[in-house]
Amino acid sequence: MHLVELIRKKRDGGELTREEIEFIVSGYTRNEFPDYQISAFLMAALIRGLSPAETAALTNAMLHSGQVLDLSDIPGMKVDKHSTGGVGDKTSLIISPVVAAGGIKVPMISGRGLGHTGGTLDKLEAIPGFNVNLSLEEFRRVLAKIGCAMIGQTAEVAPADKKLYALRDVTGTVESPYLICASIMSKKLAEGVDGLVLDVKTGSGAFMKDLNDARFLAKLMVETGDRMGKKMVALITDMDQPLGNNVGNALEVEECIDVMRGRGPADLRVLTVELCGWMFFIGGRTESVEAGTKLAEDLIANGKALERFRELVEIQGGDAQAVDDPTRLPKSRNKVLLHAEQDGFVTAIECHEIGVANLLLGGGRQRKEDSIDPAVGIVLHRKVGDRVRKNDALCTIHYNSEQFLRDATQMIQKAYTIGPGQPETKRPLIQEVIKGKSI
Amino acid sequence: MHLVELIRKKRDGGELTREEIEFIVSGYTRNEFPDYQISAFLMAALIRGLSPAETAALTNAMLHSGQVLDLSDIPGMKVDKHSTGGVGDKTSLIISPVVAAGGIKVPMISGRGLGHTGGTLDKLEAIPGFNVNLSLEEFRRVLAKIGCAMIGQTAEVAPADKKLYALRDVTGTVESPYLICASIMSKKLAEGVDGLVLDVKTGSGAFMKDLNDARFLAKLMVETGDRMGKKMVALITDMDQPLGNNVGNALEVEECIDVMRGRGPADLRVLTVELCGWMFFIGGRTESVEAGTKLAEDLIANGKALERFRELVEIQGGDAQAVDDPTRLPKSRNKVLLHAEQDGFVTAIECHEIGVANLLLGGGRQRKEDSIDPAVGIVLHRKVGDRVRKNDALCTIHYNSEQFLRDATQMIQKAYTIGPGQPETKRPLIQEVIKGKSI
Repeated sequence: MHLVELIRKKRDGGELTREEIEFIVSGYTRNEFPDYQISAFLMAALIRGLSPAETAALTNAMLHSGQVLDLSDIPGMKVDKHSTGGVGDKTSLIISPVVAAGGIKVPMISGRGLGHTGGTLDKLEAIPGFNVNLSLEEFRRVLAKIGCAMIGQTAEVAPADKKLYALRDVTGTVESPYLICASIMSKKLAEGVDGLVLDVKTGSGAFMKDLNDARFLAKLMVETGDRMGKKMVALITDMDQPLGNNVGNALEVEECIDVMRGRGPADLRVLTVELCGWMFFIGGRTESVEAGTKLAEDLIANGKALERFRELVEIQGGDAQAVDDPTRLPKSRNKVLLHAEQDGFVTAIECHEIGVANLLLGGGRQRKEDSIDPAVGIVLHRKVGDRVRKNDALCTIHYNSEQFLRDATQMIQKAYTIGPGQPETKRPLIQEVIKGKSI
Repeated sequence: MHLVELIRKKRDGGELTREEIEFIVSGYTRNEFPDYQISAFLMAALIRGLSPAETAALTNAMLHSGQVLDLSDIPGMKVDKHSTGGVGDKTSLIISPVVAAGGIKVPMISGRGLGHTGGTLDKLEAIPGFNVNLSLEEFRRVLAKIGCAMIGQTAEVAPADKKLYALRDVTGTVESPYLICASIMSKKLAEGVDGLVLDVKTGSGAFMKDLNDARFLAKLMVETGDRMGKKMVALITDMDQPLGNNVGNALEVEECIDVMRGRGPADLRVLTVELCGWMFFIGGRTESVEAGTKLAEDLIANGKALERFRELVEIQGGDAQAVDDPTRLPKSRNKVLLHAEQDGFVTAIECHEIGVANLLLGGGRQRKEDSIDPAVGIVLHRKVGDRVRKNDALCTIHYNSEQFLRDATQMIQKAYTIGPGQPETKRPLIQEVIKGKSI
């Protein structure tokens, strides 16, 4: 095989074989091919697209570029959830303990936030002491012991994805559903799961703003998982405004604990319970999704979810007392209320602006190497559809430094649109469900 | 401007501005952008295509990446010819002296052969002592003195093209008419010409096998030259069998001298005179192309073309006596005839196989750094349409080493197709003429 010939084949719209894709990915992982050839290949793949077989082959090659966990010695089904990300999207912190408390193992490898979107690892690290850098051996041990474990991607997991993603990032080849699918699925399948629930976000705050694009990516991932023999389902969910009320790492942990105490905002509660319901169902724990959501609600109501969360925090080195006493979580030194400037209804809250405001406050990172302030953030008191009167509090800004407060405040003001009439139709939280073949 | 944004713009089918293209090319020439970003850009440009304005901007940016000759102090019009290349295509060696003898200056910067196609520089170097490595100053001096000069691309000419071509070669981004156009035109316009005659080859032995592709490239180059204020014409000519009878560097020089003596094969003579006619016409030397071809024929008949060729060889350090005594040209130690194995008509001679046979004999180069044997080659005694009887000589193979003789012979046998009936229609030598706006 000759790499240039394979690039030309893809360039001209041909379909590469499994062996050809394996040749490209394994050679690149072993540093045998220069970046300039692979970036040309990635651009051809982005523009020409990949067939379902090619997408599965790419996923498989990337998956097997590193270690694939074999969890067969840990009894029970292993199911994970992956979200394509958004603002205020914190369901993972609730889902892991709920589903583990219900008897399904949740081996979760997550990412960090970048730009305006948050990341699960950053939220976990807002809990004093919480260690997301477990080795795969420790990860396995925690999972066996309490049924859930939450870590970051290690060097052993899908190294091809690390190299490819870094190259895509600087060559304009990020925005391909095929490449996104292979990137996500190769990392998630390395967890050794039996099934996967995908939360594909759509709306102005999502990577896939258009429902069609979200549906396309969701189908691609479900089909790829199908081909790998996994139980798959994708929920296409709304990200047209932040999920829940709290944005900012410690504030989001607090909101998760609220939900696990049976409180918290309805949208976050509903979506989380629905995702748990699907995990119980595809994990074979319940006969139906409805029974699964019921089980999740019960595990929250009887305190077992919160108890499991306490165990998780404890075993991963975190301050378990913070679970019961959220004042132990990082707090900002200052708070300020932002008020409505007119009467009316909230017709939109732009996720991007809220995310960037959090970034400006120090709660996110512009570049991978930036450090973040876990205490800062925004608590939204009014969401889309809510009536407001002039001088009503729209949100509270939690900040430590005045430096970018003004810019952040302006961003939040820009995020809120207040109009004279109530928005006519409310966007459904769960817009579509795409099921895999084996469920 | 941000390079990744420009890559994304092209990737999504957008049109880049002149400034944006200039930014990419000048940054790359100055080594400010890594190869992996530029190869992604080239792949996007190849697949999405470039608009006429983008193609002209790319050509212009590549042209001005290096030195552009200003020949305005040398009196008279300067016109060059460029061929997209083929097998046995040796017209440049005749055109330069003919057109110079007719009073039009011909500043010709040429290339070397690679793979199965030959190169003008290699042919010139078959003349003992001929130096194609003049500096641009010496080039200008020779041109001013005798009206023509023939050299290779120097480091000062279009350095962006050198870098881009090397990258395209290893990233599957050669086969783009837009990028080919910019590569050719940036080098040719650096010569400081007023006009350019393009010989765009089509047929099985050409880079553009399909007439539509050849026409597309021809129009692109003519339009690009138009936009630069040059007098342009493109002739689409046949390369379905080798041009002339001789293939191999010294053998081709000998055939050129034959033509300048009023002899030589008809196809080579006709095409050469036609190209000269167009050069005289667009250079304003004659009122019509017909008058131009008549002038070219006269200059051959009265010996002035050959005299000018003698001067050219002399001034560039070559053995001028070889012009009158071709036995002074390199000769192979051995010759062998290849005979027809059956009665019939020659229905095809594949250029690619003939070119590869010459390569196997040592007359071409597989890689840029290979050295070549100027003496070897093939003299075709039968061309397409000719009647042959079993055991008639099809061609003579000139060789020095037995090493690949057998493979070369098999290649030539494969090149010839002998069928029972005469091929019905003869492909016209000149298939189309595409004129620029200003002629």
